[in-house]
Amino acid sequence: MSDLHKDMVVIDGLVISNWSRSVFEDMHKGGLTAANCTVCVWDNFAETMQNVSKFKGWIEENSDILTQVYTTADIERAKAESKVGIILGWQNTSGIEDQIGYLRLFKELGVGVIQLTYNTHNWVGSGCWESSDSGLSDFGREVVDEMNRVGIVVDLSHVGNKTSEDAILHSKKPVAFSHCCPSALKDYPRNKPDELLKLIVDKGGFVGFASYPPFLPKGPDTTVEDCVEGIEYMVNLIGEDSVGIGNDFTQDQDAKFFDYLSHDKGYARRLVPKRPGSGVTVMPEGLRTLGEFPNLTATMEKRGWPEARIRKVMGGNWLRFLKDVWGA
Amino acid sequence: MSDLHKDMVVIDGLVISNWSRSVFEDMHKGGLTAANCTVCVWDNFAETMQNVSKFKGWIEENSDILTQVYTTADIERAKAESKVGIILGWQNTSGIEDQIGYLRLFKELGVGVIQLTYNTHNWVGSGCWESSDSGLSDFGREVVDEMNRVGIVVDLSHVGNKTSEDAILHSKKPVAFSHCCPSALKDYPRNKPDELLKLIVDKGGFVGFASYPPFLPKGPDTTVEDCVEGIEYMVNLIGEDSVGIGNDFTQDQDAKFFDYLSHDKGYARRLVPKRPGSGVTVMPEGLRTLGEFPNLTATMEKRGWPEARIRKVMGGNWLRFLKDVWGA
Repeated sequence: MSDLHKDMVVIDGLVISNWSRSVFEDMHKGGLTAANCTVCVWDNFAETMQNVSKFKGWIEENSDILTQVYTTADIERAKAESKVGIILGWQNTSGIEDQIGYLRLFKELGVGVIQLTYNTHNWVGSGCWESSDSGLSDFGREVVDEMNRVGIVVDLSHVGNKTSEDAILHSKKPVAFSHCCPSALKDYPRNKPDELLKLIVDKGGFVGFASYPPFLPKGPDTTVEDCVEGIEYMVNLIGEDSVGIGNDFTQDQDAKFFDYLSHDKGYARRLVPKRPGSGVTVMPEGLRTLGEFPNLTATMEKRGWPEARIRKVMGGNWLRFLKDVWGA
Repeated sequence: MSDLHKDMVVIDGLVISNWSRSVFEDMHKGGLTAANCTVCVWDNFAETMQNVSKFKGWIEENSDILTQVYTTADIERAKAESKVGIILGWQNTSGIEDQIGYLRLFKELGVGVIQLTYNTHNWVGSGCWESSDSGLSDFGREVVDEMNRVGIVVDLSHVGNKTSEDAILHSKKPVAFSHCCPSALKDYPRNKPDELLKLIVDKGGFVGFASYPPFLPKGPDTTVEDCVEGIEYMVNLIGEDSVGIGNDFTQDQDAKFFDYLSHDKGYARRLVPKRPGSGVTVMPEGLRTLGEFPNLTATMEKRGWPEARIRKVMGGNWLRFLKDVWGA
C-alpha cells in the first residue's frame, strides 16, 4: 500500500457484499475509510429495519475495525482511528413502503444514502430496466423533499434516465449517481449518457465510478487499468471535483443472491441477463477484492495523476459531497 | 407556582394524553421538566414507528417548549432551557412484535421506557387483568436482557404480579412501576401489594404514584390532598428515595380512546370496567390537568414535607433511577 493510499480518506460509494468478519477485514486491509453499505434492495419496511439492526450488531461485534457513520465528522474519526466507517444505504425506496415519516427515523439510525428506484417502476418513479420511464411521481417529489430536509443523499444509479433528470431538477440539494459507468464507454441500460452526467454535476451533484465489468467495454477481461481509464473519461467530461469511486463490490455473494438482484421484486421477471459461467460477477483483474483497493491508487500513480486529483477522486470528493447533503 | 416547584426537576412518569399544542402548553405551564409519553399501547411495529415519527414531528414543531430526551443530560438541559423533555415510552411490547433486534433501534430513537405487558397475556408474559398469570416467558427473559443491555427501563405497571415478580428477580438492572397505587389503599387488579412494592425497591427499583381516581379509595371524589396522602403511604412503606410521580394524565382523550384502552388488543373482550358517566376518567380535584401540577408541590409543602423530600419525590428520584438504567 502506498504512503498516499495510507494517508488519504478513501471512500467506496457502493458495497453490497455478503457481510462477515472476513469481508470487514478485507475492507480494512484495503484501507477503506468509509463505504456505503447496502441494507435494502427489495426489502420492505420491517425487513429493512431488521437489516439495519443486524448491521448495528455487526458494527458492535467488529468494533476493533468498524465504526458507524452518521456525519462526515464520523468519517474523519474513522480515519483517525484506522477503522472502516459504515454508511448504511439503500438501493430502493421499498424500505419506506408508503410512509414518508419513516425517512426521518432511518436518517436518525444512520441511513445516509437512498436510491429512489431499483431497476424497475415503484411508487417514487422508474428504474433503468423498466421498458418505459414514467418520470418522478408526485409521491416521489415528496420523498425527495423529505430526504432533502433530513439530509439523506438521493442516489440515482439504478434509476431510469427520465426519473433521474426529474429528480436532479426537482431536488433542492445536489444528488448522486453513487455507482455507474458512462454510456459512452458501453451502451448498456445501467450506464449513463454524457448529458445526464453533465446535468447532475451542473447542479452540484456527484458521480461515483463503478469498476463493474458488465458495465465496461471489455466485460470479464476488464483490468484495474481499464477502470482508471474509465475514471479518466469521467474526469475529462465532468471535472475532477465531482468524480469518485462506487465500485459495487459483491464480494462473497453467490449465484442465488445475483438471481435475487436480477429479478423484479427479487423473484418476478428477469431484468438483468444472467452472468456467464458461475452466475456471479467477477471483479476486474487487480481489483478482484476489497482488499485490493490500494491498486486503484497505485494505478492512478502509475498513470501520472497528480496527488491532489488522486486524493479527490479516491475519497475527498465524496466527503465534500456528503457534507453538502448531510450538513457540516 | 412556588419558588421550589419552579426551581426543581419535575418528572411525570406517565402521560397518555391526546397530544396537541394545547396539551404541550399545559405541560409547560405545569412546570414539567420531563414526562414519559406513551407512543405504544396496542400498536404493532409499523404503527409504533409511525407514532414515534409523528411525535418527533411534534417536538420539532413545538421546539419552543419541547425537547426530546435520550439521556438524563437531556433532562438537565430541558430544565436549563425551561422546556418539557419528552421521553418516549410504551405500555406494551406489541411494538417489537417478535423481533428482539428492534429494541436497539427504538432505544436509539429515544424510547426509554417499555412496559412488558398491557393488561393481558402477550409473548413476554401476563398482564394485571389476565385471569391467570403465566409468569415471564423465556422470550420475555430475552427481551428483559436486551432492554438491560441497551438501557431501556423495564416498566411493570400494567403487568401481572407473578410476571412482575419474575421480571424483578430476573432483570440485571433495577425496574419500575412507573404509575401505580398500593393495593393497601384499594383492592383493585391494577394496584400493587405491599410485598411487591417492597421487593422492587429491595432490588434497586422505583415506584411512581398514580394520581388516578379509579385506583384510589374515594374514586371520583379524590382530591390532590388524597393523592399526597397516598404518596405518604408509599414513602412510609418503601422510603423516600424510591418514590416518584406517574400521574397517568389522559388529558383531552375521549370515550372512544378509553374504550380502546379498556379492551384487549384495543377491540376484543372488555377488561377494565367502563368509567361512570362520560366514559372518561376525571382527574382529582386540584390536579385536573397537567397545568395544575404545581398543586402537588403546594400540597406537600402545606403538609409540612421537608424540601429535600419534595425534591426527591417530584423528580429527583426519577432522575437518579433513569441514570441507573440508562447510564450516566
